Amino acid sequence: SFCLLFFVCFFTVKCTCLELETRFPADAPQGSLWPLPQKVQTSEASFKLSGSTFAIVDAKRSSAGPSCALLQDAYTRYYNYMFGSAGSQWLRQIRRSGVSELTELQVWITSTDPECDAYPGVTSDESYELTVDQPHAVLKAPKVWGALHGLETFSQLLYEDEYGAKIINATSISDFPRFAHRGILLDTSRHFLPISTILANLEVMAMNKINVFHWHIVDDTSFPYQSRTFPQLSQKGAYHPYTHVYTPTDVKMVIEFARLRGIRVIPEFDTPGHTQSWGKGQLDLLTPCFSSTKPSGTFGPVNPILNTTYQFMTQFFKEVSTVFPDAYVHLGGDEVDFTCWKSNPDVQNFMDQQGFGQDYKKLESFYIQRLLDIVTTTQKGYMIWQEVFDNGVKLKPDTVIHVWKGNQEQYQSEMANITSAGYQTLLSTPWYLNRISYGQDWQGHYRADPQDFKGTDEQKKLVIGGEACLWGEYVDGTNLTPRLWPRASAVAERLWSAMNVTDLSDAFQRLSAHRCRMVERGIPAEPLFSSYCPSEYKHL
Amino acid sequence: SFCLLFFVCFFTVKCTCLELETRFPADAPQGSLWPLPQKVQTSEASFKLSGSTFAIVDAKRSSAGPSCALLQDAYTRYYNYMFGSAGSQWLRQIRRSGVSELTELQVWITSTDPECDAYPGVTSDESYELTVDQPHAVLKAPKVWGALHGLETFSQLLYEDEYGAKIINATSISDFPRFAHRGILLDTSRHFLPISTILANLEVMAMNKINVFHWHIVDDTSFPYQSRTFPQLSQKGAYHPYTHVYTPTDVKMVIEFARLRGIRVIPEFDTPGHTQSWGKGQLDLLTPCFSSTKPSGTFGPVNPILNTTYQFMTQFFKEVSTVFPDAYVHLGGDEVDFTCWKSNPDVQNFMDQQGFGQDYKKLESFYIQRLLDIVTTTQKGYMIWQEVFDNGVKLKPDTVIHVWKGNQEQYQSEMANITSAGYQTLLSTPWYLNRISYGQDWQGHYRADPQDFKGTDEQKKLVIGGEACLWGEYVDGTNLTPRLWPRASAVAERLWSAMNVTDLSDAFQRLSAHRCRMVERGIPAEPLFSSYCPSEYKHL
Repeated sequence: SFCLLFFVCFFTVKCTCLELETRFPADAPQGSLWPLPQKVQTSEASFKLSGSTFAIVDAKRSSAGPSCALLQDAYTRYYNYMFGSAGSQWLRQIRRSGVSELTELQVWITSTDPECDAYPGVTSDESYELTVDQPHAVLKAPKVWGALHGLETFSQLLYEDEYGAKIINATSISDFPRFAHRGILLDTSRHFLPISTILANLEVMAMNKINVFHWHIVDDTSFPYQSRTFPQLSQKGAYHPYTHVYTPTDVKMVIEFARLRGIRVIPEFDTPGHTQSWGKGQLDLLTPCFSSTKPSGTFGPVNPILNTTYQFMTQFFKEVSTVFPDAYVHLGGDEVDFTCWKSNPDVQNFMDQQGFGQDYKKLESFYIQRLLDIVTTTQKGYMIWQEVFDNGVKLKPDTVIHVWKGNQEQYQSEMANITSAGYQTLLSTPWYLNRISYGQDWQGHYRADPQDFKGTDEQKKLVIGGEACLWGEYVDGTNLTPRLWPRASAVAERLWSAMNVTDLSDAFQRLSAHRCRMVERGIPAEPLFSSYCPSEYKHL
Repeated sequence: SFCLLFFVCFFTVKCTCLELETRFPADAPQGSLWPLPQKVQTSEASFKLSGSTFAIVDAKRSSAGPSCALLQDAYTRYYNYMFGSAGSQWLRQIRRSGVSELTELQVWITSTDPECDAYPGVTSDESYELTVDQPHAVLKAPKVWGALHGLETFSQLLYEDEYGAKIINATSISDFPRFAHRGILLDTSRHFLPISTILANLEVMAMNKINVFHWHIVDDTSFPYQSRTFPQLSQKGAYHPYTHVYTPTDVKMVIEFARLRGIRVIPEFDTPGHTQSWGKGQLDLLTPCFSSTKPSGTFGPVNPILNTTYQFMTQFFKEVSTVFPDAYVHLGGDEVDFTCWKSNPDVQNFMDQQGFGQDYKKLESFYIQRLLDIVTTTQKGYMIWQEVFDNGVKLKPDTVIHVWKGNQEQYQSEMANITSAGYQTLLSTPWYLNRISYGQDWQGHYRADPQDFKGTDEQKKLVIGGEACLWGEYVDGTNLTPRLWPRASAVAERLWSAMNVTDLSDAFQRLSAHRCRMVERGIPAEPLFSSYCPSEYKHL
């Protein structure tokens, strides 16, 4: 068959042209690609690969060389994924007659600046082109970010024949993400997540072409972020001041580990609500609640009427802006409970002075407005939860508004409103992975589409992507990884692959294979349904 | 204070008498006992323990000596639980002045036959008495089964002081289970569970005083049981004939590992439904389904009209009766779909001959009746799912009927009916742990009580216990352990502790501590809610 959309068939044996709408046979090697690339053309011509001869090398014309540690590191990582499993070590020696060998994957960074030492961002070029053919496979990408994705795709093309030999079919792939922002939110406040858990999940994010780690680092329950400026915040607010904190070194390590995998780290410091743990180490930061005429001893949201509050926030976010290199910081702004503010006579006086009447949303907006001004001085862009937009706070034009509330109808109309006001937006409502059931949750996650609302093409372009959220009430190092994967993989494909990649039955086949691949790479990704993997997860 | 219900206070410092209705302070060392013993008396007098001097030894008067491998093995296991954690190794050397040391736990088996080499059974004596005092602690039990439980309780009494030294308070405990049958069902058909996963969970069952592993070993989806008589059953019916089977050696290992922990292994070979995988290796065992007048190529339940079926079952259950030493085998009998039987003309003829009319329940009963007769000849007792009772099959008086269907009202009336007919029963309906939600599932499991139905005292005595079931559609080695624990612990306490141990808030405190202890012992038991453990689970 002849392929209209993409490369002509240049393989000798038999050429199958697989467009986006074509389903891969369940047992085809291409049947495990996840997320599905934009354009794939494959052939039955196949090559064998041997761990002792195969190498991933810089192409001669590549603008990235041996000094590009990010790529060299990735070559090692992917070599290990492909050849590192001890189980089939000896089988690799078996040679199939009549099958030629592929000995090289050449990685060719085409733009003058490969961005080896840069941080990925929302405008980073993540595209790549991959050609698997004799005499060697070539991975072309303008920047290292695309090369990382191409390496993952290349590794996904490998399969084992009946003798356990590694095989790859002649293939051409042209790929790029549908959305620039493909994130996962992890919550390290309700439960402290060990660094090992965070790093392992960054590893899995890369396997799924997720490019944002939204680090919901602190909340009511605990404050594990160790601040250099205000060390008492974690000293008093963490579950334990030494064993349950992220030191500056930890944070640096997470950021660099993520960068090497093309993943941005966007920290969230949610205020004025969700801040109980802040109050333990920072006196007078939270609003004292009153019971009739006396302070009750409990505290509410951040106190918006004191100058000291804004002085603190200025210093704190100045630190945050230097610790986290990403161009954005998430400022939260969700679920502010007005009960405590209402009870406090000083707050009531302030409301009167400002002419807010009894409209506490105005007080909330007053606080947020000043916070946004503070953060703007740090040269950071900001993301905020949808309430801030809903309450009419004045926002910078480049603000990203994060939608998380309501049912389908409600979030779709919210997306329409936000984009019609000209703001960029990000969807999470259908992807609250903390919600679980006895069933195939992933299908619902897979069906949701962030551009599925009534709006113009201009409006749709303002949707920069989405995030799967795994809130931490019921997860920690014991169960987070299997609960997140492969359910988050469904979101990863929705955000990467073409809009019309929606066939649930094809997705089931590919995702099942992808989950077994994650298991083979040592990740306890849970099953989709009754099934088995060639090599089961045997650890605890 | 003086303790009316139990031992007088014989400690010098201060004596607190804790009856069943008394809640332990959240931070008290006794606040981590799970399941709660029947009677606990504790004192503030405390002793230190040192790994280098402490020993668990046979009491001089014990009927079990060094040749009782089960106990020797348990001494090692519990020594390691108590002193094996590398983290606090060096701290143990620190001596507290003025605190005397406890150097021995003497284990005294009091009956003439300790049952060292026996298998546990439904009538096994599991009681024990534990006294922690100077000059040594004494654990008295009629049989080894009680001693195993007492060792677990002793290990739960240990805590660390501010210097990391191991401390135990003077304590007296008298304990025995409320119900004789406290089980967990694991399903190795929908997903194959690696032996390592099964053994690890047997280990955790022992930590929770669970004494039955109900091994739902085969089902529609796969047949991993390797039969010596019919090897083709797993050869054709397993997910993979070599990597996804339980060999005779595997099965022996599971049974012995369980025995050493006081756990019975009851296999379930469910028929006539749930048998699709059986049909792959055993021709003519299943009923051919018809589409209009022709066989459709699909198969239904076991074919009840052929003599060959009963010949097969005779041989098969003869093997099962020798492989599994327990006095009971579970025969299933649930969810028989009549569609295929109805479609088959030979079955219809048979119905006519037998005078069953169109009542396929009579055909089902006909099959089950013959199966029960077959199993009776193997000298085994049997357990069956409630449908077999509901359909009026004639049962041996010692049959155990397993309730799994309906809402609370329905299962309570089922329990009333079964016991009023004089049969023993077992509850599982409220304990289907495969059902999950974004919430504290354990509370519902904890509230359910198998004797909570309208009936006489005689009827209530026929309730031998219950089982938590974790059906396998969505669990395998990647996620089974955290999904099972500590939710199954809630069931474990309901089945062990006194009926009036129902305080949710006290249970939350103790269960939180118990789950952190499981984590410390290397088990990924998931959190109950926002919280932390002193030492978090750091593996994947």
